[in-house]
Formats: sequence, C-alpha cells, structure tokens
Amino acid sequence: MKETVVEYILSKLYQLGIEDIFGVPGDYSFPVNDSVCANSHQRWVGNCNELNAAYAADGYARIKGVAALSTTFGVGELSALNAIAGSYAERVPIFHLVGMPPSLTQKKQRISHHTLGDGNYDVFYKMSQHIVCAHAIITPENCIEETERLIACALHERRPVYFGLPADYAVKTVIKPFHHVVPLIPNSCSETLKNIIPLILNKLINSQQPCILAGSMSLRLGVANTLQTIIEKTKIPYTTLFMDKSVLDETNTQYIGMYTGQILTPQVTSFVESSDCVINIGTILSDFNSGCYTSNIKIENIIHIMEDKVIIDGQCYNNISMKDVVLALQNRLLSLPTSSFNHHKSPKAQSLGQPIAVETNEITESYLYPRLEKMFRPNDIIFTDTGTFSMGLAFSLLPKGASFHSQSLWGSIGWATPAALGAALASPSRRVILATGEGAHQLTMQEISQFARFGLKPIIFVLNNDGYLIERLFCKEPEYYYNDVAQWNYAQLPLALGCDDWYCKKVTTCDELNEALQAIETLDTAAYIEIVTDRYDASKYLIKMREIISSIYTN
Amino acid sequence: MKETVVEYILSKLYQLGIEDIFGVPGDYSFPVNDSVCANSHQRWVGNCNELNAAYAADGYARIKGVAALSTTFGVGELSALNAIAGSYAERVPIFHLVGMPPSLTQKKQRISHHTLGDGNYDVFYKMSQHIVCAHAIITPENCIEETERLIACALHERRPVYFGLPADYAVKTVIKPFHHVVPLIPNSCSETLKNIIPLILNKLINSQQPCILAGSMSLRLGVANTLQTIIEKTKIPYTTLFMDKSVLDETNTQYIGMYTGQILTPQVTSFVESSDCVINIGTILSDFNSGCYTSNIKIENIIHIMEDKVIIDGQCYNNISMKDVVLALQNRLLSLPTSSFNHHKSPKAQSLGQPIAVETNEITESYLYPRLEKMFRPNDIIFTDTGTFSMGLAFSLLPKGASFHSQSLWGSIGWATPAALGAALASPSRRVILATGEGAHQLTMQEISQFARFGLKPIIFVLNNDGYLIERLFCKEPEYYYNDVAQWNYAQLPLALGCDDWYCKKVTTCDELNEALQAIETLDTAAYIEIVTDRYDASKYLIKMREIISSIYTN
Repeated sequence: MKETVVEYILSKLYQLGIEDIFGVPGDYSFPVNDSVCANSHQRWVGNCNELNAAYAADGYARIKGVAALSTTFGVGELSALNAIAGSYAERVPIFHLVGMPPSLTQKKQRISHHTLGDGNYDVFYKMSQHIVCAHAIITPENCIEETERLIACALHERRPVYFGLPADYAVKTVIKPFHHVVPLIPNSCSETLKNIIPLILNKLINSQQPCILAGSMSLRLGVANTLQTIIEKTKIPYTTLFMDKSVLDETNTQYIGMYTGQILTPQVTSFVESSDCVINIGTILSDFNSGCYTSNIKIENIIHIMEDKVIIDGQCYNNISMKDVVLALQNRLLSLPTSSFNHHKSPKAQSLGQPIAVETNEITESYLYPRLEKMFRPNDIIFTDTGTFSMGLAFSLLPKGASFHSQSLWGSIGWATPAALGAALASPSRRVILATGEGAHQLTMQEISQFARFGLKPIIFVLNNDGYLIERLFCKEPEYYYNDVAQWNYAQLPLALGCDDWYCKKVTTCDELNEALQAIETLDTAAYIEIVTDRYDASKYLIKMREIISSIYTN
Repeated sequence: MKETVVEYILSKLYQLGIEDIFGVPGDYSFPVNDSVCANSHQRWVGNCNELNAAYAADGYARIKGVAALSTTFGVGELSALNAIAGSYAERVPIFHLVGMPPSLTQKKQRISHHTLGDGNYDVFYKMSQHIVCAHAIITPENCIEETERLIACALHERRPVYFGLPADYAVKTVIKPFHHVVPLIPNSCSETLKNIIPLILNKLINSQQPCILAGSMSLRLGVANTLQTIIEKTKIPYTTLFMDKSVLDETNTQYIGMYTGQILTPQVTSFVESSDCVINIGTILSDFNSGCYTSNIKIENIIHIMEDKVIIDGQCYNNISMKDVVLALQNRLLSLPTSSFNHHKSPKAQSLGQPIAVETNEITESYLYPRLEKMFRPNDIIFTDTGTFSMGLAFSLLPKGASFHSQSLWGSIGWATPAALGAALASPSRRVILATGEGAHQLTMQEISQFARFGLKPIIFVLNNDGYLIERLFCKEPEYYYNDVAQWNYAQLPLALGCDDWYCKKVTTCDELNEALQAIETLDTAAYIEIVTDRYDASKYLIKMREIISSIYTN
C-alpha cells in the first residue's frame, strides 16, 4: 500500500508505542489531524490549548517513554515551546509534528495567516531548533530517512524532535530513497569502556561504605531495572535526590530515604557524605536537586555515570553510554560473591508517621502530608507541581510500584495538571493522583475537563493557601500583592467544566480532609478536593530551604 | 534620588502612559515585581498565566498604544512567545521585561531551575530575538542608553522589544553614561518626500473615482485622525478590509462598508475595483484580509502608503514614513478648493438590518448578528477571536467611536478573552464586549476571573456551536472528531471562577437571547451569555469563504 508522508510518520510512531496524539487542530495541520482520525489504532486527544497539549504529551512520555504532539504553524507551535523546553531539560522525548503552509505558499512568500506578515516561513522553525535535539522539514523524498534520523536522535538523547510538515507534502506519497542511509548514533568506545569498568569495580569493592545515587536519567535510558538487580545482589544502600524520587522502589530495605544536602534528614546526609564511594547514576546536582547547592560530596568519593560519560576521581571519560556501563557492571557484579561488598550500617527510609492535628483542627503540614502518605496505594502515579505542595509530599514514603513525578529542573508551574492527564491516558489502569497548588493550577486548569471527556477517574488535590506561598517565602516582602491570585470557588470548577459526576469537596479541617479521603476509598468516580490551609503553612523542608535560598538569588 | 535599573525602566514606561504591568511573578523577576508593588503610580496585574498576560498586554496596547509585560526566565518568557509574535505581526508595541538569573549564576554556568540544565543562559534570549524589533540585556552601565533605544525602536516600529534583566543588575543603581548617545531612528528622506507628494496628488486630483483604503497601521502610527480630517475635507469615499475594521468612524457618510474581495457586498467590491485611484494607507493584503486573495485592484490604480515606503504605479519609493506622507498630503489637500475632487456615486455602508428569527426560534445568523449590532453603543470596545463569530459580527455597522478588534493576520484563537481584559483595564470607562467562540474561549478562559478581581464589568458572549465550526467548514471531513471540544457548562464558569455577582445565562432561542440582551441594558454587573446555535450555523461571509478556501490550502 502506498503511504502518505503523514501516514508513514504516524505508523512509525505507533511502532514505538504511541497510541495517542496530543494537540490542537489547525488548518495547516489538517493532514495530521485527518490521518489520526482516519487511522484505527491511534487516538486524537484534542487538548484545550497547545501548552496543555505539550504538557500532557510530557506526562504521557514519562509513563510510556515517548509521546507525540501535533500543533499548527506559528500560533500553535509557539504556544507549546515552554513545555517542549521542559521536556528537553528533563529528558523526555516528544515528537513535535508541526503543520506548515503548503510549499508553494512558502516559496512565493505569500502573506498568510499565522505568519509575521513578512513572507518569512523559517522563523518559527529556527526558534524551535534551540530546544530540540534534531529537526527537519519533511518532504516525500526525505521522509523515510529523516523520520528514522529524528526517531533515532529522540530515543538516543531522550529529548524532543521537530517534524515540519508542509501541508501539501504531508499528503503526498512517500518516495523510497535510492541509497538508504541508516542514521548514525554514537556507540560507546569499547576501549574506554574496557578501561573504566575495572576502575569503578575497584573503587566499589574496596569501599567501606558504598552508596548509590539513583538518578532519573537511569529511568529514562531504561537502566533502572538493571540498577535494581545490582542493588538486590550487592545490597548497596541507595538514595535519590528530589528530582529522582521513586526512580527505584522505595519499599526496598536498602533505600535510605531522600538526600537533600543540608536541608533535611541529617542521617541520610551524614551517610551519603561520609561514604567513600557514591555511585551517581544519572542525576544532576542542580540548585533544587542539591538542597540549594548544599550537597557536599568530595570529588574523590563520587563516581558519576552519566548518559555519555563517566567521571571518576575528578577525571572525565567520554563516549561511553550509561547503558553499556551499567550492563557491564551488572555482568561483573553478579559473578562476584555477595561477601565482596562491605556494608556500613545504613539508615532506613522513614515514613512521615502519624498525622497530627493541631488543636484548632485546621489543616497543617503536620497532618496533611502524613495523611496523604497513608492514602497512597501500590502502583499509584502521583504528579505534583513545583511548589509548596510537592515540597511536603515528596517526603512521603511510597508503596511498591508507585511513582512520583515533579519537574524539579525546569520547574514550570501549571505543568502537573495536563501532565497528569497525559499519564492517565498512558496508563488507564493505574490510579492517577494530581497534587497541585491553586496558583499553579490556575495556569492550566481547563485541562481537567479532558479527564471527564476520556472517562478517566483521577484524584485531584488543590492546595489553596491564598496565593503563591513558595514565592511569599522566597521574596523580600511576602505580603506584596503580586503573590496573591484571583479567588476562585475551586470545588465548583469540575461541574462547570463538564465533569458532571465527580466527587468535589472543599475541606478546611483535618476531620473534613479525613472524611473526604475515606469517601474516596469507596468511590468509583473521580475526586477533586480543595484543601484550604493557612497562607503560611509550609513543610519543614520548605521552611529550611527558605533560610538558605535568599543568599543564592542575590549570589 | 538614585534609581535602580528596574525603577528607571518602569519610570520611563510610566512616562509613555503605562500604568499597568501584566505578568506572572517569579523568583528571577522579583526585582520587577517588587518595584511595581512598591511604586504608587503603577499597578501589578497578576494574570493566570503568561500567555494570557501577554495577550492582555496586547489588548491594553491596542487601546493605549503601548503596554508592558513581566515574565520570569525560561518558563515564563517562553509561554508568552505566541502572544509576542502576534504583537509583532500585528504591530503592537509590548515592552517585555524578562527577569534573568543573577549575572554570577550565568557566568559560572550553574545548573539552576528554569534552565535546560546545560549552563546556557542565552538560549531563550536568542529565541525571542526572532519576534522582537530590538533587544538588550540590561546592566547598570547600559541601562539609560539601552532603555532609550528599545523604547525608540518599539515606538518607531510599533513592535515588541525585549529587556533581559539579570536579578542582581536589576536592583543596582543606574550609572549615567559619559557620552550619552541618542538612539538613531530613520527620518524620511526629504528629497523622496518632495518628489512623491505631487505624484500622489496628481493621481488623486485627476481621478474620476478616488477611494481610500484605511489600514490599521494608520491607527498604530497615529495618523488615523489626520486621515479622518482629509476625508472630511475631500469627501473621498473610504472602505476598510477585515483586519482594519473601525480604524475610521463607520458613521461617516463617506464610509462605503467593508471590502472583502469577491466574497461579500458586491457593490463595495465593484466600487473599489473600478476606482482609478485607490489610496491604501497601511493595510496588508494577506489571505484573510483580501477575501482569500480574491481582491483584484489593478497595480496602476492603487497607491500604497506604508509605514516606511510608498508604492505608486508599481514603483517603490523607500525611506519615507507614512506619518510624513500623510501630514504633507493633509497640508496640500486642505489648501485646495473642495471642488478639486471628483466624486462618483459611491455605495453607502449598510447595517445588517432587522434580526430575522426562523420558525423554530433557534438562534441562527439571520437573527444573531443583526440583533447584536443593535445592542452596540457609541464608544463600545469589541474584541473577537478569529472564527465563526467574528466572521459574522464584523459586518455589523458600528456606532460612533466604537472600535472592533480582531487578530486577522496572526489569528491565534484564545487571544480575545485576555485581550479584552487588557482593553478593559486600559479604558475602564468604556464598555468592553467580548465575542468569542467556545473553542477559542477554552484556551484562555480562566482570565475572566481577572475582570471580577479588578471590578470590571464586561459583556461576554460565548458562541457555543459544539466545536471548531470554522475548521469543520474548511477541512475535508467536517465530522472528524478533532473538531469536537470538551463539553462545558459555560454559564456556570463565572461563578466557579469567583465572578460572584455576574449575570450569567445560557440562551438557545431568539427570544431568550433577546431577553438576555434586554436585561443587560439595565444591569450594573458584568454579563456572560452562552449562545447556543446549530453546529453548522455560519454567516454568509464564512459560507462563501469556504467555497474558495480549499483551493488555497492545497495551492
């Protein structure tokens, strides 16, 4: 059968497991929209706007590994850029299909809608090139090779790629290239690999107190399971940083809890920083991921195994992939007797304990986070926005298989609501919990209507503390009114947005919260709970963070 | 008094008439946020998200001439890009103030939040450069000169400019330059100007049937009043294109109605296209602004007076500003006797006439648009999204002083809701009417909460035709489900969004619509009316447009 350019690309994406295409339709992208609707194995997810669509694709890809986004020229693609940049930063592969005006319109430099009015049809393509790892304008002639190249780059770098699709080319039949060129993806240098493995093993086996730092890149690059096997064999204790929470199972006895530099849990900090061999597998020590740069591990005590390099004793070995290094390590470690590894007594990860209500019964962090921790079930998918809520909730200890998602490097508020939608579509059998602050929720909240539209049943918590609390804590004058947000009646939103049968509650006391959480246990509908707290109620982590952060913002 | 960098910039913007700063706060932009809140003559308008903020700034600038937007690094600025590009395309000057990480953080290439994690702090600045007419990273040393330059460029080009503000520099005291360089803005070439005026006058005075095409650039460049004076003196008939509607008063007897190429109103088309001297003052013949390229004026019969050039008899004269040309023409024309100008009998602009209800009493275009035309009052400000609604409503004849705003070149749906907010803040004494389709409204609808927050009383019409009708009409299979949108209960939205005392109605019959419109006349609150029509009910203009448009999209 003869395939069109769009059909070819969509079928290749389907082979990768992409069953949903997120986006907003538009005339220049009708070929993509038409082809998705005409095709029986993929579904069009028409989001409320393009930013939300791209966030939803990001959430989908965090669960399924990859995702696709369709936007129209100019107006559509630019609205998605913030989300695409976030996927680039946080290593989430998104295939961004951009419908462009027909080639002749471009060639003739016609003044068309969705252009700057200057006949320039390259400008938006150029803007996107800064935040994708590969890009191409697709023609019938280059379609097969360019699609292969873009897919290979996206999978290798775990980053977004850009397909520009002129509307006329998109519906033309794909032309097979005469000389099919297979895309070149760098392989590990076998020599370097051979040299580096003994160095790592030597350090590890001679270590008195080894420790593994499991980073989110290990999950993105598909080596988390191998890592889990290594940990089970060697019994090496492991920790994660904030951004990497739940990359490995938190119920394992070797899990020592989250490492936050000097901010919280001194027993974890003390263990990690006194370790003579910390093996970091794919985490980055950004500000919010290193306790505001308070992490203090000596260079000689840490081995960084990153996507394409290893750093050991302060020396960098390039051109070796994390996957190859971790697989080689696994092979060597599994053949050693268990007694080869020393184990200093390591701390055990702590749960948040019993919820403690204050005398007034108002909801405070001493009740809220321990109580939510208790409601988590195995395999739950939890999405949180960067803010007050995540900086409390992240310290809950998760049940087996549960995963916790935040956007700690890019930190774009509003991300979590559509991202949770994407995750729910990616894995309809798992329970999806969205925990967002009301300030963040306001950016993208219309997307909750899509949960109802697609028959999904998320549990949504909106923490209403009357403004941007994290900003109140970090800025010089907390009561400046730029930290206020418009006052909404949150619990009424789902109904207005067509979520007709949802369980919606506004809770202001611990008892009300407890009641709502008990009700949720037996419900077969989605739930939307507005949790009202004092405007300054914050987790211990956030309070401590406040103490050190002001010095960073002013250097 | 010593001023900081941010204080200096804000005071310069205040001198231009900017009393409101739109935006979303963020830690890197705290200096801007703080300074606005600390300053007694400017107001912080905290929008729900950055795209909405930038649209609101665009709406504000369409009323006041200029506007300011404040966003934070990366996450904030990128979310605003679609709107900034729209302002660039449609010639609306926006001062985009972007809070950046402190200079030392940048210099040290620290891995901070809101970055791509690669230590690159230029990337977002580079992305914005494609869609602003000038840009700078501001330091205490360059602040005075760069601020002058950016303001001069924005005012000259009527386009957005970018101020990058590293957080540490932003709060430092401005340093006066030793040699103050005044920004160079091109002047008209006096020789060309001297030569071109007689050419234009000669053609005009010898014309048997002159006609003026009044474009939105004449309004942006502040020559619309001069143009009105010329028209009143010479009695030359005038028309506008879709994008330029209401640039000149529509109650004037010389107004002949909208010119839409071959689509509608053949009497206007016939008059314009048989004119031997069409003077186009600042309109562009884009697809949607030329009846899908069906406008057919012979090159020898049209004089284009554009922002920086004149095209006459197919020959282009550069380096002369529209303002200088129009002022020179005014001076010469006012000194001539009225009898110097020939006047062919011109058509008179037609109102939409009486609303006609169909037998079922359901709301159709034959009732809707004439009925809404009747409710318009002098000085109303009307904002419409590109779509079904605007393509009917634009053919209403407006009362004196009323202005009609759409985004016909950029055409980003969702723009109108926040833009109407910006306009209402810019001119609280005028009545603001928002006419949007439900598909467009879904993109940005949270912004209606800001009307209530700021005590504004807009009248909002949401046309609910069960999906993206304009797309159903233009795509190959109207019932493809990508043209569906989530089903909402629109009339319940304002209450959920904190608009507690609004008059909200869903109307499905002509009688209900009429009743609601009558109720609005006596109300002292805002109104939000969901107007339900059949999913294929469209204006005559849109139906005709459909017939010719498919050939354009496929060339």
